[in-house]
Amino acid sequence: MAKKAYLCAQKSNYMSLVIVGSIAYDAIETPFGKTDKIVGGAATFAGLAAAYLYRDVKLVGVVGEDFGEDNLNILKSKGIDLEGVQIKDGQKSFFWSGKYHNDMNSRDTLVTELNVLADFDPVIPDSYQDCQYLLLGNLTPQVQLTTLDRLKHKPKLVALDTMNFWMDIALDDLMNVLKRVDVLTINDAEARQLSGEYALVKAAEKILQLGPKYLIIKKGEHGALLFGEGRIFSAPALPLADVYDPTGAGDTFAGGFIGYLAKVGTINFHNMKNAVIFGSALASFCVEKFGTERLRELDTDLIAQRITRFTELSKFDIDG
Amino acid sequence: MAKKAYLCAQKSNYMSLVIVGSIAYDAIETPFGKTDKIVGGAATFAGLAAAYLYRDVKLVGVVGEDFGEDNLNILKSKGIDLEGVQIKDGQKSFFWSGKYHNDMNSRDTLVTELNVLADFDPVIPDSYQDCQYLLLGNLTPQVQLTTLDRLKHKPKLVALDTMNFWMDIALDDLMNVLKRVDVLTINDAEARQLSGEYALVKAAEKILQLGPKYLIIKKGEHGALLFGEGRIFSAPALPLADVYDPTGAGDTFAGGFIGYLAKVGTINFHNMKNAVIFGSALASFCVEKFGTERLRELDTDLIAQRITRFTELSKFDIDG
Repeated sequence: MAKKAYLCAQKSNYMSLVIVGSIAYDAIETPFGKTDKIVGGAATFAGLAAAYLYRDVKLVGVVGEDFGEDNLNILKSKGIDLEGVQIKDGQKSFFWSGKYHNDMNSRDTLVTELNVLADFDPVIPDSYQDCQYLLLGNLTPQVQLTTLDRLKHKPKLVALDTMNFWMDIALDDLMNVLKRVDVLTINDAEARQLSGEYALVKAAEKILQLGPKYLIIKKGEHGALLFGEGRIFSAPALPLADVYDPTGAGDTFAGGFIGYLAKVGTINFHNMKNAVIFGSALASFCVEKFGTERLRELDTDLIAQRITRFTELSKFDIDG
Repeated sequence: MAKKAYLCAQKSNYMSLVIVGSIAYDAIETPFGKTDKIVGGAATFAGLAAAYLYRDVKLVGVVGEDFGEDNLNILKSKGIDLEGVQIKDGQKSFFWSGKYHNDMNSRDTLVTELNVLADFDPVIPDSYQDCQYLLLGNLTPQVQLTTLDRLKHKPKLVALDTMNFWMDIALDDLMNVLKRVDVLTINDAEARQLSGEYALVKAAEKILQLGPKYLIIKKGEHGALLFGEGRIFSAPALPLADVYDPTGAGDTFAGGFIGYLAKVGTINFHNMKNAVIFGSALASFCVEKFGTERLRELDTDLIAQRITRFTELSKFDIDG
């Protein structure tokens, strides 16, 4: 009894889910319409998704003084801790503008203004040192490395999301941070770029030798593949009548994924599979409206219904 | 008892699976190599796949005198009835040559010689009038219509496979034959072309108003979607290290699909889902070697093992 209580106490000392990433303004154009500057950023999407699944979510990021209190309240209202979010006086927030093509799978970047992100130095508040689950959202690998260095305890699980841009300009740093993470999430084109292999099975084999124990390849409307422990899991994507805006879907996926793992607390392939389904389900909401709009109006019932749809979508039973 | 025996007798009168399609020579180039003229054709691939699942498979097609007896024996040795395959003296078999790009998803047609297919008039032998399952393999819609007209009894299930080429040059005929089929199998680009809708959910809605009760959208390495009865099923594709030659994968899928339904004998969404998995499993073998090579060396154990891999690949279990 005494031992058990001790273990519980220990556990409660290291329990938070920390998410590092951009908190930004986006301006988006899709075949369905066009937005002014709206709230975006990897940490924003991931944080909103994770907060539906796990209570103790903490963000690390930076914004400029142009980032309105009401925008930060979007995150605070979901119980997300923003102590690690720096607000830089006299500077502007990271701004990205993009235009999606008709297929919604490809896009042109119209504007990228790094602003506060240009010299982002992540600050980890003392209260964040209880980090048990860490999501290194899509950011420069150097910031991802610095974050890892500044945590006094190695988290139970570190997941990293990245993109082709960092493979192009910061591959060495990316390789260094990959050695220190448990899970990598990238899309299929990025898996091919990183590995130099076209077949995703071969790409996964090579990437799993770079450090991560698990690899998730996101395939957008075609679902996701999870590789690890010598096994493969194929998660479906929910076929949607309208994809309004794919921005943030990958970040939302990552947030839902790690939020689910933080909730269940045990890392194994069974839970990883379910985490991929939860990430996919949250991402399927994300794309239904522009920016974070849809993601902000969810509840546990809506998420449970969506999980049921994923189950119905892919379940079959062959007797032999 | 008497009634049941009568029903069984009835059933045994109408039980064959008839497949109509090309029986051809292909010459294929992929990043893995290049072939001379090898056996190909929609009916060949579909017939080989179906014959592993169902005993009573009959082909309708036409070849030239250049089509060697040994090539026909490939089909005969699997127990496939070739009474409906015409051999045209002094004429040459249909010949197609193509080159696949590095992504293996796109290809250039190098040569198409219609030869005997140019004026193909399908002959349905009397012994084929017991047709209960009919697969109208990828061919001109006019031949697909003629085949339906020449069957004295409406089969229990008619599946149709077609391609963008017929949408381009014979859309009216295709629309006519679609009114008379139960299942349509096409790929995602073709579903978009046929419906004018980009989102596959919307495309499926429109296509299901054209006649078919079920629609299967084949997505190659991304699996397949089954639409019907107001439901959707997403089947995974097996991630493969090497896709040697995608030629015939769609035909193999269709053959495996209808072969499974003929075997189980009951048409409902549950069995349709399993049929999609069997089609996918057989297609996953097809691409492992050039042409029909891999498809010819299978057995029920290998197929059962592959089905198990599909189950493991996509199964998850979320308690709530």
